[in-house]
Amino acid sequence: MSMARSQVSLRGKDILGLQHMTVPEIQLVLNTAQEMKGIIRRDIKKVPTLRGKSIINLFFEPSTRTRTSFELAGKYLGADVVNITTSASSVVKGESLRDTLMTVEAMGVDIIVMRHEAEGAAQYASKAVSPVIINAGDGAHEHPTQGLLDMLTILQKKSGFANLKVAIVGDILHSRVARSNIWGLQKMGAEIHLAGPQTLMPRDIEKAGVYVHNRVEDALEGADVVNILRIQRERQQKGLFPSAREYARIFGINKDRLALAKPDALVMHPGPMNRGLEIAPDVAYSDQSAIQEQVQNGLAVRMALLFLVLMGGKEIEAIN
Amino acid sequence: MSMARSQVSLRGKDILGLQHMTVPEIQLVLNTAQEMKGIIRRDIKKVPTLRGKSIINLFFEPSTRTRTSFELAGKYLGADVVNITTSASSVVKGESLRDTLMTVEAMGVDIIVMRHEAEGAAQYASKAVSPVIINAGDGAHEHPTQGLLDMLTILQKKSGFANLKVAIVGDILHSRVARSNIWGLQKMGAEIHLAGPQTLMPRDIEKAGVYVHNRVEDALEGADVVNILRIQRERQQKGLFPSAREYARIFGINKDRLALAKPDALVMHPGPMNRGLEIAPDVAYSDQSAIQEQVQNGLAVRMALLFLVLMGGKEIEAIN
Amino acid sequence: MSMARSQVSLRGKDILGLQHMTVPEIQLVLNTAQEMKGIIRRDIKKVPTLRGKSIINLFFEPSTRTRTSFELAGKYLGADVVNITTSASSVVKGESLRDTLMTVEAMGVDIIVMRHEAEGAAQYASKAVSPVIINAGDGAHEHPTQGLLDMLTILQKKSGFANLKVAIVGDILHSRVARSNIWGLQKMGAEIHLAGPQTLMPRDIEKAGVYVHNRVEDALEGADVVNILRIQRERQQKGLFPSAREYARIFGINKDRLALAKPDALVMHPGPMNRGLEIAPDVAYSDQSAIQEQVQNGLAVRMALLFLVLMGGKEIEAIN
Repeated sequence: MSMARSQVSLRGKDILGLQHMTVPEIQLVLNTAQEMKGIIRRDIKKVPTLRGKSIINLFFEPSTRTRTSFELAGKYLGADVVNITTSASSVVKGESLRDTLMTVEAMGVDIIVMRHEAEGAAQYASKAVSPVIINAGDGAHEHPTQGLLDMLTILQKKSGFANLKVAIVGDILHSRVARSNIWGLQKMGAEIHLAGPQTLMPRDIEKAGVYVHNRVEDALEGADVVNILRIQRERQQKGLFPSAREYARIFGINKDRLALAKPDALVMHPGPMNRGLEIAPDVAYSDQSAIQEQVQNGLAVRMALLFLVLMGGKEIEAIN
Repeated sequence: MSMARSQVSLRGKDILGLQHMTVPEIQLVLNTAQEMKGIIRRDIKKVPTLRGKSIINLFFEPSTRTRTSFELAGKYLGADVVNITTSASSVVKGESLRDTLMTVEAMGVDIIVMRHEAEGAAQYASKAVSPVIINAGDGAHEHPTQGLLDMLTILQKKSGFANLKVAIVGDILHSRVARSNIWGLQKMGAEIHLAGPQTLMPRDIEKAGVYVHNRVEDALEGADVVNILRIQRERQQKGLFPSAREYARIFGINKDRLALAKPDALVMHPGPMNRGLEIAPDVAYSDQSAIQEQVQNGLAVRMALLFLVLMGGKEIEAIN
Repeated sequence: MSMARSQVSLRGKDILGLQHMTVPEIQLVLNTAQEMKGIIRRDIKKVPTLRGKSIINLFFEPSTRTRTSFELAGKYLGADVVNITTSASSVVKGESLRDTLMTVEAMGVDIIVMRHEAEGAAQYASKAVSPVIINAGDGAHEHPTQGLLDMLTILQKKSGFANLKVAIVGDILHSRVARSNIWGLQKMGAEIHLAGPQTLMPRDIEKAGVYVHNRVEDALEGADVVNILRIQRERQQKGLFPSAREYARIFGINKDRLALAKPDALVMHPGPMNRGLEIAPDVAYSDQSAIQEQVQNGLAVRMALLFLVLMGGKEIEAIN
C-alpha cells in the first residue's frame, strides 16, 4: 500500500468520476481516507495542512449532506471554504456556466467543488478553467465521492471487493450514485446486480458487465452488499412511475427481503432516505445498516481528496 | 460566585430550556457571559479556546439574529461553524428529523444548535444523537438563550432578580420567549405579570404562579422591567387576532403607558420589532430601552454556553 | 506614491461612493490593491493581518460575485466573515433597516459590507451605526468597489487616466456601475463618453461633464476603454425597453463595432454578461477583453479596502 502511494499521485488532477479513475488512484484515496478518519474522531478536529488554500462549493442544485460534508472537510483541514448556491447566485440572472467558472477562477480559488444538473458539467468545467474540479454530482452521470465513500464502507466491513455480490436497487436510470458505484466496484473486482422497475433501467446496461434482474429477490439472493437508492418522489408525482405504494410493495427493502441476502450483508443508502418507501425503518436502523458509517466515510473521503489534489501525498505521515 | 463555578458544570449537557435548568447552572452561564463581553468589546475578538471544535447551526425556521449570533459566537472562540437552513436543505426532500440529526452526528460535529417549528424538537434531538444540543427555539416551547440574555440584561441594570416586577406583554400563547422568561425569572425570585389579548393567553397559566392581567396598564403599574413581545403579523392576516390597529391601541407600549412603570423601568424586546405596533418608536429608542444591550448580551450568552458545554469551566481564567 | 500613502488614511472611514472620495484616497486604494494581488497569486493565500476582525456581508439583494469577492477578501486576510442575505433574514419579518443595522452593530462587528436596493442606503447606515460601512451597491446610485476595480484594471493596461477616452455603453439610467465609473474616472482626468437608448439615459447628464451620444458608434470612435454595462432582462420583460433583439442590433458590442475603437482598446464588463445581447462572445473572450482581470482586481480592491479602513497603512510592508 505504501508502494502504491509512492507511485501514484492525484496532485492537480480533476476528480470527475470513477469511470476513468485507475485502481491505484482509488486505492490511494481509500487509504488516505482511512487516515483522515483519525482526525474526524479526534477531540481537536483541526490540522493546518490546507491553510491558505481556498475551496468554492459551487452548487447549482440544492444539497445539504454533500455541501456540508465538503465544507467541514475543508475546514477540518484548515482551508477557507465559500459556498455559492443557485438560490443566491447570479446564475439566476442568466450568466453562462463558463462565465461563472471563469469568475470563480479569477478569484484565485484552488478547488471548485461543483454540483450541476447537466451530465458532463464537471468535465466541461475541467476544460474551461484551471482550479481543480471535484464533481459533486453531474445530472444522472457520476457522483464520484459517493462512489468512493461506498467503497470505503464496504472495504471496512468486508476487507476486499473481489467476488463480492453487490445488489443495487431502485431507479438506476436517473442515478448518478448507481453509475459511480458500478464503475468503481467493477474495477475492484465486485459483481454488480441491478434491480428496479423496468422503466427505470437503462437500456443495454448488461453490456457494462452487470446483471439485471426483474425481481428484486433475485438481486438480493446471497448478496454481500445491498445498496438501496433513493426514490425521487418528484418523479412519482408526475405519474411516470409506479406509485409509492406499488414501489414499496414490489421493490422496497424490508426485513423479509433482506433475509434473502447473506446474514452479514451490508445495507447501504446514499440518503436522504424515504423510510417506508424504498427502505423499511427496521432495515435502516438494523445492525446490518452502515448508513451512518457512510456519512462519516463521506467526510473522510472528501478530506482525502482535498488533501491529495492539493498536496499530493507528501505530508500524509505528518497528519496522523 | 467562584464557588458556584467549581460546584457546577455544564460540560456535555444539552441546553434545552430554562424550565429544567438549576439556579447554579443559570448563574454559571450569566457569570461566564459577563466575562465573554470582554472579548466582544476587544479590538481583537478572537481566542483559540474552541479551535478544532465544530458547530452546526441547524435551522428549520428562518432566522437572522439568532443564527448570526451563534455563528459569530463560535467564530470569536475559534470554532468552525457551518450553517444548514431548510431552504437549502435535504429536509425539502422529505428526510426525517432523526435522519438529518444522525447525518450531522456522523460528521463529527461537537454541537448542534437547532431551531425547529415543533415543540419538543430539541429534546427529541438530545435523545436521538450524541453531540451537545443547544435549543435555539422549538415552536412555542422554549428559547433558552433568549431567556438567558434577557436575564443578563436585567442583572446588569438591576443587580438582582429578587422581588423585581417583570411585565411581559403580547402574544403569550405562541411565545417561546415568554415561556423561557417565565421559567427562568421565577426561579431567580422575580414576580411575573402577563398582559395580552385574552385569545392569546394560555389557559390556566396562573397555575404557574404568574399574575395575569386583562388590562396592560395593570401589568405595567410599578414594573421594574417591561418585556414587549413581537406580534407576528402573519397571524393577524388570518383574521384570528385583534387587528394591528386595535392591538396598538389597546396593548402597544407608548410613552404614556410606560409612565405607569417605575421611572427607571427597563424596556426589552427580543426583536425584530414592529415599531408602531407593539412598541412605539420613542419607547424603542429611549434611554430606558435595553434592546441594543440585549443583542450584545445574546452574543455573550451564546459564547458562554458554547464554551461551558465543551470545556466546562477550567480555562475560564485564561480567556479574559 | 509612498508619499501619498503617508499623507492619507482611510482608517475608520466609510466607503460610500467615489463621488466624494479624494484623488489621494483613490490612489491609496489602487496602490494597496496592487500589493494585495501578490497575496491572491500566492500558493498560500493567507495573512493574519485582520485576525480577530469581523465582517458582515449584509445583502438585501441577491449577489454572487460581489458577496463571494468580499467573503474571500476577508478570509484571505484572516478575518471572520458572516453572510446575511434577505432570503434567510428577519427583514422578511418587516424589521426596519435601522433596527437591522443596530442589531449587527451590537454584535461587535468591525465592518458592514452592505448592498441595498435603495439609493442612499449606505449613507443612511453610515449615520445610523458605528462599524465601518462599505457600500456594495445602493440602488442605481453607487457601487464604489466596482468603480475602483475598473480603475485598477485600466491603470494596469494604460498606465494612467489622463486624457483617456472611456466609452460606457448601455442602460446608464439604472446603473450604479456607470455612476461610480463616471465620478471616479473623471476625477482622475479621463474623458467619459456615454451611449445607450435615449429612454435609459439620465436627463441633463451632460451637466456632469460627460459626452452623450445617440449612436454607439460615436462613443466607440477612437476609445481607449469600452465599458459595456449589463442589460437587465427583467426590465425588458416589462416592455419598457427596446427588445433584446433590437438592443443587440443597435447597441450590442461586436467585433465590427469594437474596430471603431483604438486597436488596443480595453473591453470591460462588470458581469454577469448576457452574451449575444450587450456583448458578442468573440468580444467577451478576445485578447482585448479584461473581464477576467476585472474579477481578480475586484478581489484585490476589496482586500485593500478592508485592510485600509481597519488598519490604516501601517502594516502594509509586512504583508507582501
